[in-house]
Amino acid sequence: MLKRSWIDSANDAEGEFPLNNLPCGVFSTRGLPPRCGVAIGDMILDAARAEEAGLTGTQRLLQSAKWNPLMAEGPAVWSSLRKRLTDLLAEGAPDRAAVEPLLVPMADATMHMPLEVAEYTDFYAGKQHAQNVGTMFRGPENALPPNWLHIPIGYNGRASTVVVSGTGIRRPLGQTKAKDAEMPSFGPSKRLDIELEIGAIVGTPSQMGEPITTDRAQQMIFGYVLLNDWSARDLQAWEYQPLGPFQAKAFATTISSWIVTREALAPFAVVTPSPEKELLPYLKGDFPGNYDVNLSIEMNGHRISTTNMRELYYSAAQQLTHHASSGCSMRTGDLLGSGTISGPGPSNYGSLLEMTWGGETPLDLGGETRTFIEDGDTLTLRGHAQGDGYRVGFGACTGTILPAPDYP
Amino acid sequence: MLKRSWIDSANDAEGEFPLNNLPCGVFSTRGLPPRCGVAIGDMILDAARAEEAGLTGTQRLLQSAKWNPLMAEGPAVWSSLRKRLTDLLAEGAPDRAAVEPLLVPMADATMHMPLEVAEYTDFYAGKQHAQNVGTMFRGPENALPPNWLHIPIGYNGRASTVVVSGTGIRRPLGQTKAKDAEMPSFGPSKRLDIELEIGAIVGTPSQMGEPITTDRAQQMIFGYVLLNDWSARDLQAWEYQPLGPFQAKAFATTISSWIVTREALAPFAVVTPSPEKELLPYLKGDFPGNYDVNLSIEMNGHRISTTNMRELYYSAAQQLTHHASSGCSMRTGDLLGSGTISGPGPSNYGSLLEMTWGGETPLDLGGETRTFIEDGDTLTLRGHAQGDGYRVGFGACTGTILPAPDYP
Repeated sequence: MLKRSWIDSANDAEGEFPLNNLPCGVFSTRGLPPRCGVAIGDMILDAARAEEAGLTGTQRLLQSAKWNPLMAEGPAVWSSLRKRLTDLLAEGAPDRAAVEPLLVPMADATMHMPLEVAEYTDFYAGKQHAQNVGTMFRGPENALPPNWLHIPIGYNGRASTVVVSGTGIRRPLGQTKAKDAEMPSFGPSKRLDIELEIGAIVGTPSQMGEPITTDRAQQMIFGYVLLNDWSARDLQAWEYQPLGPFQAKAFATTISSWIVTREALAPFAVVTPSPEKELLPYLKGDFPGNYDVNLSIEMNGHRISTTNMRELYYSAAQQLTHHASSGCSMRTGDLLGSGTISGPGPSNYGSLLEMTWGGETPLDLGGETRTFIEDGDTLTLRGHAQGDGYRVGFGACTGTILPAPDYP
Repeated sequence: MLKRSWIDSANDAEGEFPLNNLPCGVFSTRGLPPRCGVAIGDMILDAARAEEAGLTGTQRLLQSAKWNPLMAEGPAVWSSLRKRLTDLLAEGAPDRAAVEPLLVPMADATMHMPLEVAEYTDFYAGKQHAQNVGTMFRGPENALPPNWLHIPIGYNGRASTVVVSGTGIRRPLGQTKAKDAEMPSFGPSKRLDIELEIGAIVGTPSQMGEPITTDRAQQMIFGYVLLNDWSARDLQAWEYQPLGPFQAKAFATTISSWIVTREALAPFAVVTPSPEKELLPYLKGDFPGNYDVNLSIEMNGHRISTTNMRELYYSAAQQLTHHASSGCSMRTGDLLGSGTISGPGPSNYGSLLEMTWGGETPLDLGGETRTFIEDGDTLTLRGHAQGDGYRVGFGACTGTILPAPDYP
C-alpha cells in the first residue's frame, strides 16, 4: 500500500519514487559539490545536509559523496536510517519545516556515481539468455554448459569503467577476426550490444578464508541497481576462449543513478524457479531471494523488450554465496551483475544479440531498423516493482554511443 | 656495476638489495604503525620519516603506508626520488649522519602490502605454459588457442585477496566434479597449485575511452613484484567454461613484499621473442620491454624449478596496451600478472600441474614426494637480475597452506 508523503509528487500511483522507495543516489546542483541524496517524488532530499542537521540518526556516514560508509555499517543501521527518513517525509510529519529547505528539484540536479565500486563481478544467471547465446555460439545440443545448472557461473569484470546513467559511451576499439580471414584486424567494434541486468551491491564485507551461507549473503546485500553490461560481440567472439570475456566488456558498464534498497524491494520478494537439478547444500536457501521487478529496454525511445527479474535462475544471495565459497573476501561496494535477464520470447530478450538472433533479424524502430548499435543511438533500461497503488522504481539507466576514438 | 653504499651489507655481490635496487615496501616495527620503506642491504630506510625530515625531495607522498600516492605522480617524480635516495645512501654521502637514525634492521620488521591494489588482471603470456596446459586440457593439436599468437590474453582477477608474502593461505573450498560422477560435490580442493608469475604495477593512470601506445604503456609502469597466482586445478577444470577462471583463483594471490622499480630493472631490459606471427600495429613496440630475471620455486625448502622472465612472449607494456585498447581506463595500483613463466623443460616449469604433468609424475622432495600441495607445505618464489658484481633481487614471495575452513 502507498505510504503517503507530504510531498505531493511522491503520492502518484505511477511515480517511481514514493515514500515506499527512498533510493540512494549522489547528486550535485549548480555551484555545489556532489553529495548523498534520497529520491522522493520529483525531489531529492539532501541527505548529507539532513545528517548535518541531526535529522537522520547517523553521524558522518553521509558526507563522502558515496554511500559506501553507510553501506559498511550493516542492516541495522540501514533500517534505522530508512525509518528516520520515512518519519521525516510521511504525511503529517512534525519535522516538515526543518526538512523542506533540504529538498532539491530532481530536474535541477546532476547525478553522479552513487557508490565507489570496490570490484565488479558479472554473473550469468539468466537461463534463457545462457541457452540463447549457447545455441548461437555452440549449437543447440551444447547450448547450456554442463556446469550451468550447478554453479551460478560468473567472472570478474572491470570496476574502473562502471559509470552512472547518462554518461556517454565511446564505441570500443579491439581485435576481431572474420571467419575466413587469415589474420585478425584492429578497429571499432561493429557488433556493439547491451545486456539488461540487475546489479546487487554488497554492503557488509566478509573475511578472506571465510565462506558464507546464503542466509548471511542475503543480509550482506544493501540494494540493487539497473545495470547495462555493454558488450562488443565481435571482440568477445575472438577473445573469450579460453579465459572468458575481457576487452569486449571492459570499456563500459552503466548503472542507474539510484540504488533501490533491499528493504524497499522486500514486499516484492519471490523465490527463484525450482531447480532442474538439485543444488549443492551451500547454494540452498529457504527464503525468497529474488524480486518481481518489471524491466524494459528502449532504443532511441522505442520500447524493444520487456522482461522481469523473476527470470533469474539464481538469486543475488546465491551468487554472492558462491563468490565467497572459495574463501574470497567480499567488500563494501562490490557490484554483482546478475547476467542478462531474458524472458521466454524474442520480445523479452535482454540483448540485441538475442533479439536479432546474431544480427540476422533486424529490429524495427518505427521506420529505421537496427541489428547492433550505431553511433548516436541511445539505449535505456527501466525497471519497477508494482505494488498495490504504487511503484518502486529504479529511474533510468541510459547511455548514448559516441564514435570510436582515433587510435593514438 | 655495483654502486657502493656506506651500508656494508649493501655491497655484497650476492645480496638482493644493493644501492642499484632500492625496492619499495611497507614495514612496521614493534609499537609503530606500518610505513613506507626502501630496502638497502639488510636494512630498511624509513622513507616516511626521511620525507618528514626533508631528505627525499617529496612532500606528503610517502605518509599513507602505501606507495600509491608516489606511484600516481609519474616517472619524473619516481626518478627524482630514486636519485635522492641513491645520493643519501652512496659511499661518502654527506647526509649519512641524518640518514643513519632512519635505518631499521630488516630482521626486526614485519612487512605489509606495499600498495593498494586497484584491480588485478592476470595474463597468459608464457607460451610454454599455454602450450603445456592446452595439451593437458585439449590435446596437443588444440594446445595453443587460435588467438594466442595475436592477443596477450588476460582475464580480470580478484583484488580483494591479493596478499603480501608470508600470509598464510587457507586451502579453498569449492565445487568439483569427477569425470564419471553424475553430480558435482563441494569440499576442499585436492589439486592445489601455484603459478610463478611476475606482476607489473601501473603507476600513471589512463582515461576511459583513451587507448594507449606500447611506448606510453611502458612509461606508465612503476615496477614489478613476484606473484604467486595460487590455483585450485580441480575447481578450475569444472568452472572455467565458458567464462574463464573464477573461484579457482579468487581465494588468494601472493606478491613479494618489495616492488622492484622499472628503473632498477632497466639495465636488464631485453626484447621479447621474435613474434611467430606478425603482431597488429597497436601491439608493436621498438623498445626492450621485458627483463632478464632469474626465477625459481622452492617447495618446503627444496628448489623444484628454475626459469627466467625472458620466457614471456608478451611484455607487460604489451599487456597493458591491450588492456586499455578498448577504452578501458587504467588506474594507479592496477596489478598485471604476467601469466605462468615456464621454461623449456619440466625442471623449468612454473606450476605443479606442469611439473607433475597433471599429477602423473610426482616430484621428489628429498624423501617425500608431492603432486599437488598438502596442508602445511610452504611454497616460495625467488627472483633476481644478475649484474656485473651485483644482483637486483625481489626478496621472497612465500606462503604456507593452512587447512580448509569448516563450511559454516
